[in-house]
Amino acid sequence: MTRTPGVPGGRRTPAGAAVLREEKTEAIRAAVFAELAAVGFARMSIEGIARRAGVGKTAVYRRWRSKLHLVLDVVSAVAAEGLPTPDTGTLRGDVRMLLEVAARALRHPMASQIIPDLLAEAARSPEIAEALRTALLDSQQGVAAAMVARAVERGELRPEADARLALDLMTGPLYWRLMVVRDELPKSYLDELALAVASALEA
Amino acid sequence: MTRTPGVPGGRRTPAGAAVLREEKTEAIRAAVFAELAAVGFARMSIEGIARRAGVGKTAVYRRWRSKLHLVLDVVSAVAAEGLPTPDTGTLRGDVRMLLEVAARALRHPMASQIIPDLLAEAARSPEIAEALRTALLDSQQGVAAAMVARAVERGELRPEADARLALDLMTGPLYWRLMVVRDELPKSYLDELALAVASALEA
Repeated sequence: MTRTPGVPGGRRTPAGAAVLREEKTEAIRAAVFAELAAVGFARMSIEGIARRAGVGKTAVYRRWRSKLHLVLDVVSAVAAEGLPTPDTGTLRGDVRMLLEVAARALRHPMASQIIPDLLAEAARSPEIAEALRTALLDSQQGVAAAMVARAVERGELRPEADARLALDLMTGPLYWRLMVVRDELPKSYLDELALAVASALEA
Repeated sequence: MTRTPGVPGGRRTPAGAAVLREEKTEAIRAAVFAELAAVGFARMSIEGIARRAGVGKTAVYRRWRSKLHLVLDVVSAVAAEGLPTPDTGTLRGDVRMLLEVAARALRHPMASQIIPDLLAEAARSPEIAEALRTALLDSQQGVAAAMVARAVERGELRPEADARLALDLMTGPLYWRLMVVRDELPKSYLDELALAVASALEA
């Protein structure tokens, strides 16, 4: 299984004839999960990751240039996971499906541990803030834009409908409830939110 | 100036005739800001706070039982700051005013540094998660409920309108954009969001 790295320049291309063994790459990725959960981003080291993965530090550095790039690559992979543009035939149906996917991604144990760690770092480092913004936002923004464009074609939305606002109205409440308030979603919450968001965009 | 602490049991009542000097309390609060910005929550110590405030450690412990309670008291004070229930006469006007207040609170340098720190801790500590939920949510939830109740009285919303969803739709997008994406709000964003939220609640 190959993944396209979400961070431009984050993943290294092997030089010359060198081939990066995929088992090692996956072992390193798994070690990142475990290390993040155990010690958090700030205290995590490339050494600790390599030790846990059973590889040398060089194996890590051949693939990613820094701890930050490694973590962002993993975060991007999860953020982009299963994010096909929905095409249910109605705006409300599309919104409902995207909410489901986003809620699943935010409930992922890795997301719920790593993203708060990275945001704490981002508050002090513009570089991390920028990289995280790219990882979290880019794929989602594209999907929201495609969803709005199709709703415009179907005549459900006016041409000036704002895809950025659509994304904020979908992701914002889920992020707030799952990652900030850290509550379970009430029963039928996604249905109510889908109706609310579709109505908001039609306004 | 006295503040009601937002964390039950977080602020100590002086025993017997002991009087807590308000200048010392304010010096400690100011030191918390400075220490958090400098080193972050995880690395911050009561000793460092006391040193910066020019008081003894005992002066801190007489007022707050722990570093966590001290920080949450400060966060609660900011969260509750200037949070009168708006009464503009329309749902959309009330939403617009609450968005303005919430955006100002989230842009506060302290909020934008401390809340991410605390959320990173909350991902590993249910106690911190619970305390933070109380600090961030309680006053806001009350204001949203009052706003929805008045809109129901005016006939703008149906009696079954959901105040919790109202809060999520207001706070979620702002939090997502200011604290996660860490972008400036686009021009007229609050107006568009107010219209969107009012329409969503009427649906």
